[in-house]
Amino acid sequence: MSAGDDARRAYDGKTKPRRSLGRLEELGVRLAEIRGFVPESLEAAVVVAAGDHGVAAEGVSAYPSEVTAQMVLNFASGGAAINVLARQAGARLVLVDAGVAVPVDTPGVRELRLGPGTASFTSGPAMTDDQASRGLEAGAALVDELGVDVVGLGEMGIGNTTSASAITAALLDVPPEWVCGRGTGVDDAGLARKVDAVRRGLAANPAREPLSVLAGLGGFEIAVLAGVVLGCARNRVVALPDGFITTAAALVAVRLEPGVGDVLIASHLSPEPGHALLLDALQLRPLLDLELRLGEGSGAALALPLLRSAVAILAEMATFEDAGVTDAGR
Amino acid sequence: MSAGDDARRAYDGKTKPRRSLGRLEELGVRLAEIRGFVPESLEAAVVVAAGDHGVAAEGVSAYPSEVTAQMVLNFASGGAAINVLARQAGARLVLVDAGVAVPVDTPGVRELRLGPGTASFTSGPAMTDDQASRGLEAGAALVDELGVDVVGLGEMGIGNTTSASAITAALLDVPPEWVCGRGTGVDDAGLARKVDAVRRGLAANPAREPLSVLAGLGGFEIAVLAGVVLGCARNRVVALPDGFITTAAALVAVRLEPGVGDVLIASHLSPEPGHALLLDALQLRPLLDLELRLGEGSGAALALPLLRSAVAILAEMATFEDAGVTDAGR
Repeated sequence: MSAGDDARRAYDGKTKPRRSLGRLEELGVRLAEIRGFVPESLEAAVVVAAGDHGVAAEGVSAYPSEVTAQMVLNFASGGAAINVLARQAGARLVLVDAGVAVPVDTPGVRELRLGPGTASFTSGPAMTDDQASRGLEAGAALVDELGVDVVGLGEMGIGNTTSASAITAALLDVPPEWVCGRGTGVDDAGLARKVDAVRRGLAANPAREPLSVLAGLGGFEIAVLAGVVLGCARNRVVALPDGFITTAAALVAVRLEPGVGDVLIASHLSPEPGHALLLDALQLRPLLDLELRLGEGSGAALALPLLRSAVAILAEMATFEDAGVTDAGR
Repeated sequence: MSAGDDARRAYDGKTKPRRSLGRLEELGVRLAEIRGFVPESLEAAVVVAAGDHGVAAEGVSAYPSEVTAQMVLNFASGGAAINVLARQAGARLVLVDAGVAVPVDTPGVRELRLGPGTASFTSGPAMTDDQASRGLEAGAALVDELGVDVVGLGEMGIGNTTSASAITAALLDVPPEWVCGRGTGVDDAGLARKVDAVRRGLAANPAREPLSVLAGLGGFEIAVLAGVVLGCARNRVVALPDGFITTAAALVAVRLEPGVGDVLIASHLSPEPGHALLLDALQLRPLLDLELRLGEGSGAALALPLLRSAVAILAEMATFEDAGVTDAGR
């Protein structure tokens, strides 16, 4: 019997019609499969990795690059959406500077800096293969020490939907138009610049092995987050991507080591057009569909209560036998 | 300025791109509109009303009627799914015996009994108009005394999807086949009996005014829950239906007093075919789609953390001004 079978059998003995909690039960079975045992509670962290992007200079975002560092300071002082949502979800927040342009020298931010922002991928690789490898290792090592059951993946980086679009186009072999959206609110002209930047990036970085795609088109925070997914897999910890960017990082991890897809649970469906393509490629069905396009791990934090409820049902509900309720045996 | 406008303006000043929390922000605006002020936190209760149904004798359910009372005892002793899920969601659980066949004499269950189970609606009205009116009044009075911001609607009653199907067919003027599903797991033969019972019920109870439909085809728990919705409206409290049966109760309330639809927020989409029709008729978009078919208020409890997060963002997040973050002003 696998741990997933144990969870399945436990749900079937609870005082409710079989499978009547639908996807909540499927979720609990998956959590047990990933952890290798039927969990009785969940310790959770949200890792928010931040990095700056050379491609932001191409006018692909509604916000200037300085906002990346400002928002890391906002995370560190507790005022951002993810601070509120992680607290609501009972998750520890782990802030990582993976390579903001100017170092954010603030207590509470882990320095896993791969450089002072990436180069623009429109004319060559965003980072070196060595930087990409170091990011993967640093992300994986972070999970080794967290000691949690679930890691929500969050990001901050002005320009990083453009990077995620380029990675998605490269790994799924689809045209830029299919994977470029409005990010956090770029206008029509900005969207056209974004498509153009991705097209030039794909031409300037023609290799399609996953490490080359990450180095060529990625961001420092995306490298670290792909590493977090690898670390989740080796620790049998649930990796809970947020939206488009973190799911692109997850796809990089799965292309590097296909087995790691087993630890992924999709939190929500983003309106970014590339996100549905990534979820399809990873065969993931998102738990929520709330038109979230913030990032920061906000969707992962919002989905966490569902994971907790799936586990609480297993741990706390009475069985037919306990409660003296007639079981239709269906 | 309405309270909804105040909430909208508050979200727009927070350190995130405008509207980037999508439906979570719409939810917070609705909560403010309903309450008449921008809430800083939410007190919540889940009212689970139970009743027995004469139509259960027609073989329309996978479970025997005795399970209704057994499950009320299970709720009272804390072993059911809704006990676990309400606790997870920080909601008080309010148990109501609206008319179980044999009284459930247990501490912690409110006795609002309208009778010892309804008559089968296949050959005449399930209850008298007076019983229906008393149920409405009792449900509304319950909300007057709860003193909460949100009431989740839950139900227990073997045979009550058949009653909800009949109410839906009558009020929306659609054929029985459109609104009969498998409930908590009836087989093909049971489903055929259910469609037939609804057809006979519609013929035996031809009046289509909402009170007549409730009395003719309803259940005691459905009458009390329709009353809870009326009580929510007069107290400006959010009414959060669970699935098919509680949404049928909400439609009865709206047909009795059209303005009360303004306090409804739909928690989830049930796989019962009639539920989508009810949500369309009420112009409600559910927050979750998890294939839940348990009832008891389980979907309402699972949606509550989203309401809490929408409010926490309003109450706890920094503004652009507070945090010194550059606002793109979109």
